Amino acid sequence: MIVVQKYGGSSVGSTEKIAAVAKRIAGRAKEAQVVVVVSAMGDTTDEMISMAKALCAVPDEREMDKLLSTGEQASSALMAMALQELGQKAVSLTGGQAGIITERIQGRARILKIDGKRLKDELNKGNVVVVAGFQGITENASWADITTLGRGGSDTTAVALAAALNADKCEIYTDVDGVFTADPRIVPDAVKIDTISYEEMLEMAGQGARVMHSRAVELGQLYDVDILVANSAKAVPGTIITKEDPKMEVRNPVRGIAHDTDVTRFTVVAIPDQPGVAAKLFHAPAQANINVDVIVQNVSSEGCADISFTVADVDFEKAKKAIEPVVDELHAKDLLIDQTLAKVSIVGSGMRSNPGYADKMFQALASEGINILSIATSEIRITCLIEREKVKQAVRALHKVFELEKV
Amino acid sequence: MIVVQKYGGSSVGSTEKIAAVAKRIAGRAKEAQVVVVVSAMGDTTDEMISMAKALCAVPDEREMDKLLSTGEQASSALMAMALQELGQKAVSLTGGQAGIITERIQGRARILKIDGKRLKDELNKGNVVVVAGFQGITENASWADITTLGRGGSDTTAVALAAALNADKCEIYTDVDGVFTADPRIVPDAVKIDTISYEEMLEMAGQGARVMHSRAVELGQLYDVDILVANSAKAVPGTIITKEDPKMEVRNPVRGIAHDTDVTRFTVVAIPDQPGVAAKLFHAPAQANINVDVIVQNVSSEGCADISFTVADVDFEKAKKAIEPVVDELHAKDLLIDQTLAKVSIVGSGMRSNPGYADKMFQALASEGINILSIATSEIRITCLIEREKVKQAVRALHKVFELEKV
Repeated sequence: MIVVQKYGGSSVGSTEKIAAVAKRIAGRAKEAQVVVVVSAMGDTTDEMISMAKALCAVPDEREMDKLLSTGEQASSALMAMALQELGQKAVSLTGGQAGIITERIQGRARILKIDGKRLKDELNKGNVVVVAGFQGITENASWADITTLGRGGSDTTAVALAAALNADKCEIYTDVDGVFTADPRIVPDAVKIDTISYEEMLEMAGQGARVMHSRAVELGQLYDVDILVANSAKAVPGTIITKEDPKMEVRNPVRGIAHDTDVTRFTVVAIPDQPGVAAKLFHAPAQANINVDVIVQNVSSEGCADISFTVADVDFEKAKKAIEPVVDELHAKDLLIDQTLAKVSIVGSGMRSNPGYADKMFQALASEGINILSIATSEIRITCLIEREKVKQAVRALHKVFELEKV
Repeated sequence: MIVVQKYGGSSVGSTEKIAAVAKRIAGRAKEAQVVVVVSAMGDTTDEMISMAKALCAVPDEREMDKLLSTGEQASSALMAMALQELGQKAVSLTGGQAGIITERIQGRARILKIDGKRLKDELNKGNVVVVAGFQGITENASWADITTLGRGGSDTTAVALAAALNADKCEIYTDVDGVFTADPRIVPDAVKIDTISYEEMLEMAGQGARVMHSRAVELGQLYDVDILVANSAKAVPGTIITKEDPKMEVRNPVRGIAHDTDVTRFTVVAIPDQPGVAAKLFHAPAQANINVDVIVQNVSSEGCADISFTVADVDFEKAKKAIEPVVDELHAKDLLIDQTLAKVSIVGSGMRSNPGYADKMFQALASEGINILSIATSEIRITCLIEREKVKQAVRALHKVFELEKV
């Protein structure tokens, strides 16, 4: 049996925590071949980002990847030492040594392939293999560069390795107990979900439920890897992310309430309402690898349109730089930027075949006196853009209206 | 013109210092192709060693190398960013990316070869190339492991790169002004030496003058690389390490006084005085890659001998472990360990053809009431083992007797 386990930064935030996690891993290694993926220790990554920003306004992404990847390289070596101290054979591998080959795109590289040869050989030698998460290497050996998979990329590393090794289990250990019907810090009644489908998890994650990285879930779905999300410090069952739950028809069609305050809205005012305008406008952020969400277009009276959309706050500067030239080129009247908003969403694959959820959601927000600024929907999600300061109130109201405490 | 510059840990100990050094480098890059070798920032390496030791008594050397190499990888990326911020094109390379291929020996690997292709290509693109010092990679690509060159190995990296690139200059920037006739903290009269031969520098370094790593000097000698040692924070000329100085015959035959308090003496008491005993005894530390110095053998009355020798304090545990079984095997009466001693040496290639220096040295120590416990000599060096607490007194006395303040 092969088990892939991932431990996040807070689970390996000190040598004491590393030693504690090592015990857990050594126990597991008695019954299975174990691959461990680790994040950087605690705040290491943030500290390195601060240093880089102290040196330059916009650090070069190649150098940034080179810098940040050291965090996971260090924690993986320390974890291997901690395992050895327990008498457990162990070896640490960088992303490159683990055969994780990515595109040559810095900061957000996608995995192209995994050459699992060394990983398997090290496992067969009786080693727990500790892989530095979040990173890979570009293909060409003599010009190989270190790449990173983007924030939260260690989850992606774990799922990708589980897929490549055809592992029996993929376990993501973190500092939360699993996926909840809403953020328990906001909704004390929130209930842990035992099983959630890939699609639902993707919608939850995409809307700010920061339990797992979306790309990791997508990868799990693509390669049919069941993913357990659980607490590294407790012995309680977590949440399993897997294919559509057969019990779905008898359960609450709404699985959870997600929210995201990490939202910047751009509004491009009065651009000509002509074919190709949207294509031009959104080509720029796409080129810059920026995710755009909640796109709304209003046609105004004089043959002009207003287009608004949101990006993550972290992408704000990059997005602004990418969009401004296009706004000029299209002779738009203005570019408005709003950083006082938040997204709140209801998610559930049962909503697909049952109408009326949007109505119920809007009613609930209205009865709380919360104004809806934009609406975006997917098959299994409805998202409203609201004032940021009312987001907790909105999450609580929706959790109650959809009776999620009874799940 | 190609210039290789190395900046030590204290020169890159903060983002402010990195920015200051970057300015210096960018200035130089206007007139030459520059390769920069950096050490880890300030105390990073020591902090990592502490973390490793918190996790295990004797950390695995492969994992240790993997851990420690991240320090230089991080500082090289930060330096590249700082250069870019000044508008200077720059790229950072790990030891492996710089083509530094080493033996598969962890912790103290020797460089086997340097494949300078990528380095040259990056230089020809107009980049300052910032190489992570102290590290290399083993040859076999798919099973490549990160190795380190041992403490102070960044000097070795710099000289090796200068040799491989046939560089015009190799400059080691540190926090001292150069090589002095004695440690200026002990002898206020100590004088900076403008030019010193490789051999003299090797003897000085081997005896505790911690300006430069011995292996780097040896490498310089082997490949005929002139090495400048200078202060990274000042614009004063440093010391050039080069071939035998032609002015040698007219200058003071003694070039400097070295001392070393990092000394543990082992004495193996009463082992049979037979052929092969010394070979057996010293095979063990050699196998463990431990440098042994000041070997003295006294034959005692009953066909037995006492053998004593010194190792660096840092090697004490390893040496003890290596020697104890041999001591048992040889039926020695006892193994004594003394950590209260120090070495003091006079160094100078002019001593080779001029007798009488040993006599003068012993007289000087005697007149200070300092007892000599052992003596060891090379062609161009005389070393005495004395009480550690009298080492400063000895250095001052010898500096005066050999009139080094007049150099």
